[in-house]
Amino acid sequence: MADERTRSFWAWGWDDRLPDHAARELLAAQVGALLDRPLSVAPYPALAEARVPPPRLAVPTELAGFTTDDREARVRHAYGRAWRDLVRGFQGDFSGAPDLVATPADEADVARALAWCAARNVALVPYGGGTSVVGGVECRDPRYAGVLSLDLRRLDALVELDEASRVACIEAGATGPRVEALLAPRGLTLRHYPQSFEFSTLGGWVATRAGGHYATLLTHIDDVTQAVRVVTPAGVVETPRVPASGAGPDPNRLFLGSEGALGVITRAWVRVRPAPRWRYSANVRFARFEDAVEAARAVAQAGLHPANCRLLDAREALLNGVNAAGDAVLLLGFESADHPPDAAIERALALALAAGGACDDGVARRDDGAGSRAAAAQRWRDAFLGAPYLQSGLVSVGVMADTFETCVPWSRFGALHADVLASVGGALRDACGAGAVSCRFTHVYPDGPAPYYTFLGPFDPARALDQWATVKRAASDALARHGATITHHHAVGRTHRPWYDAERPDLFAAALSAARRALDPAGVMNPGVLVDPVSGP
Amino acid sequence: MADERTRSFWAWGWDDRLPDHAARELLAAQVGALLDRPLSVAPYPALAEARVPPPRLAVPTELAGFTTDDREARVRHAYGRAWRDLVRGFQGDFSGAPDLVATPADEADVARALAWCAARNVALVPYGGGTSVVGGVECRDPRYAGVLSLDLRRLDALVELDEASRVACIEAGATGPRVEALLAPRGLTLRHYPQSFEFSTLGGWVATRAGGHYATLLTHIDDVTQAVRVVTPAGVVETPRVPASGAGPDPNRLFLGSEGALGVITRAWVRVRPAPRWRYSANVRFARFEDAVEAARAVAQAGLHPANCRLLDAREALLNGVNAAGDAVLLLGFESADHPPDAAIERALALALAAGGACDDGVARRDDGAGSRAAAAQRWRDAFLGAPYLQSGLVSVGVMADTFETCVPWSRFGALHADVLASVGGALRDACGAGAVSCRFTHVYPDGPAPYYTFLGPFDPARALDQWATVKRAASDALARHGATITHHHAVGRTHRPWYDAERPDLFAAALSAARRALDPAGVMNPGVLVDPVSGP
Repeated sequence: MADERTRSFWAWGWDDRLPDHAARELLAAQVGALLDRPLSVAPYPALAEARVPPPRLAVPTELAGFTTDDREARVRHAYGRAWRDLVRGFQGDFSGAPDLVATPADEADVARALAWCAARNVALVPYGGGTSVVGGVECRDPRYAGVLSLDLRRLDALVELDEASRVACIEAGATGPRVEALLAPRGLTLRHYPQSFEFSTLGGWVATRAGGHYATLLTHIDDVTQAVRVVTPAGVVETPRVPASGAGPDPNRLFLGSEGALGVITRAWVRVRPAPRWRYSANVRFARFEDAVEAARAVAQAGLHPANCRLLDAREALLNGVNAAGDAVLLLGFESADHPPDAAIERALALALAAGGACDDGVARRDDGAGSRAAAAQRWRDAFLGAPYLQSGLVSVGVMADTFETCVPWSRFGALHADVLASVGGALRDACGAGAVSCRFTHVYPDGPAPYYTFLGPFDPARALDQWATVKRAASDALARHGATITHHHAVGRTHRPWYDAERPDLFAAALSAARRALDPAGVMNPGVLVDPVSGP
Repeated sequence: MADERTRSFWAWGWDDRLPDHAARELLAAQVGALLDRPLSVAPYPALAEARVPPPRLAVPTELAGFTTDDREARVRHAYGRAWRDLVRGFQGDFSGAPDLVATPADEADVARALAWCAARNVALVPYGGGTSVVGGVECRDPRYAGVLSLDLRRLDALVELDEASRVACIEAGATGPRVEALLAPRGLTLRHYPQSFEFSTLGGWVATRAGGHYATLLTHIDDVTQAVRVVTPAGVVETPRVPASGAGPDPNRLFLGSEGALGVITRAWVRVRPAPRWRYSANVRFARFEDAVEAARAVAQAGLHPANCRLLDAREALLNGVNAAGDAVLLLGFESADHPPDAAIERALALALAAGGACDDGVARRDDGAGSRAAAAQRWRDAFLGAPYLQSGLVSVGVMADTFETCVPWSRFGALHADVLASVGGALRDACGAGAVSCRFTHVYPDGPAPYYTFLGPFDPARALDQWATVKRAASDALARHGATITHHHAVGRTHRPWYDAERPDLFAAALSAARRALDPAGVMNPGVLVDPVSGP
């Protein structure tokens, strides 16, 4: 698949979608007003000025057909798209670049690359869309002879479609749009829309337990994954293709969240569905944030299974242009390809009103007709998918904008939330001199919400990474204090390791390390994420 | 909790609920007519005549406070309640008895037992309700110095109840009725009803990934388990108490289905809920079994989430006394504590009628009022829970009655079903001279059903185990031929090992073995289930 458009070598997404100078002037004025300081626009960096260390490895004969040490390829595979990555890229620092970039054409190539890396003590980093926000694709361990980035982009075919069972086998390198394009001719969809949808891949979703747009039930890719195929240094693993089983620990669950540390996911069998025909929604505003939280809890515990149950605090509501004459808004949405979900949305709305909400416009009902792929949802999707472009643009006006998300029982949310606002707000003031924090719920469960926080602050280019680290540490420490997970759907990578190491039971880490050793005896698979290789250098 | 009633030492359940002589005369007449041969009733066995080998171990001082080598205790912990167990028990063969039986009062006792077993090369078998149907509690490996059965019955307390988050922490030894009794005063319920409900335990459910009565969504205990606490030989593991997380492979999933091979589950945090107020149901009959299958698929794929979507073939319908003027019946049920599920059941019924069904009585709507614990469901429950008593009674009239269940994509069900009927029917004729096989769906998924088969045949006491093994092998081989899992919700144990070993990827077994070694270096935890200990004798 040749791309007409080019992706930015340092920023989020397509070059032609990054905010241009005029747009950034406007951003600087708006955010400057919010942060009460003047902001100025710096030019975007040029690829020619990227600083890349020379490769430590020569392209080996065994891998020559699909491997390169080309400078631009190395720059483009250096980082994910965390804020740390953006600011380093903006400053031209590509010291994290891999030595080699391989683009295997098939599983045999993948196996060749694994064997070569294992034999030469070369770290192998599986690379999907390059959208990690947790340092998932940047290995800098000096104990390895070098790093090979294994880009799965060429493995993006539809292998099999079982229409009766609504299961598709798709290769791991397929991006979100590619997955949908493969399914659309049969009237089917995966409907897994992480914010990285345009670029992230099916394999990456499985490896990182990616979260999609469904607020309930099918919140993670885990929930639609029937089986996986993984090439490990020890051989190929293919899990049974059954809807459910009670036979021992679920083998899929070893690979869901494995972050490239156990092998390279090459295929996944995923549950697909017809595109929704009916999409109903309602916006409920609340004078008190706490009431909106109670409303979200009531809906989450009622067995209604909304597709959307997104709580926005006042600041998020403002940023999202949603009616917010109060402290919070709860966006309710139901969708179905089978039946109009009137009863469900009416009950959810009644629960929200009973919790103190007000709904001025009532339920918006859309019937897109059978088989339609609606245009209206595209608007929301464009805004949602556009947010990372803004984040990149803000780097050039000296504003740090980042997010973190978690999950916690309802009983602990109130204390957690107060602590996060105070801790992150305090860290922003200390590190940056100003800042703002906002909150929404992206997903809700009967036992608790998944709050998602956004923070903004001015940064000083000379100490940007330290400023960011101070705020990130304050946020992560606050989560840990309340037993909230370090990540609901952004994976562990390298960034979250200290908090993950404290969160996961030590003996589970021991078990996972042992499992890793069985599959990757040389310890070369994406070293640094999740758990350290037991063996290895 | 002192029991007034005594449990049978050989058969299912309470002694006073086993069919008496008159009931068995009737059973013999009915089943004899079905199998076209005369059957006669043999007396139930007496505990005094049970043949038990002498213990190979003396009660150690370290465990003396909670451990015994008492003959009756050993008999009662010898077996689960598989058909093999019933027939051996009926014949007085208790050669599978453990040498010691321990009933720890707390986790410290559990840890003491684990340490002693690890030091002495004694196999430790965690024992919950003793209801395994797959040889899960019978270890006969001669490489161990002996076997200690660790009965968790004393660990059955409610540790904590988080009402806002609807999560209860309950000790692992609590039986189904105990779990419900602990929750009832707060108006809550777990609503996990495996057929073993009366005796099986929360810890056993987690260890075996038990299936409950919900046909969709919350089909396994996995789906309501928030966190677990496990005492392993290497120490205690407690998983994070969060509704969801994207931080690495889910640690709960290592222990869900671990079958006692990794440690002793001592507590679980489970998602609870108010008792349902509305229970709606409809029975739809079909002239053709295939149409009923298509109806079940339509309902499973419509996003309606019925509590019940139970397909019965003609024979099962007859046995269950359900209106069955045709080849199959689909029982639809919806329940809610929050809202009357009219729209959902009406849509499900419409889908079933569109697939060729007929519904004579329409939807039965019950509103039990808020907070009620309905009596009517009790009737179905009594019949459901009574089936294993009949199975035990049939042993005394010379009839083998057993079940097996699986799960398979919709696209493969037709071929699987034809093969199972032919293979198991043929094996029954070959091994027993006659027999009958019936089918129902207990659970349905968007990607496939969980068919549950029952088979009946006369047996010869002198070669009962061989006859059973012939039929079981035919059934299991048929499942394997179609890529259907060896078990949807009855675990692997020792009985399913050959087929499980073929079903699960070899490298997953290697990873699981390695994980096991990390948690149980001496290899004493329930050896024989799932995977063989890497180390050990």
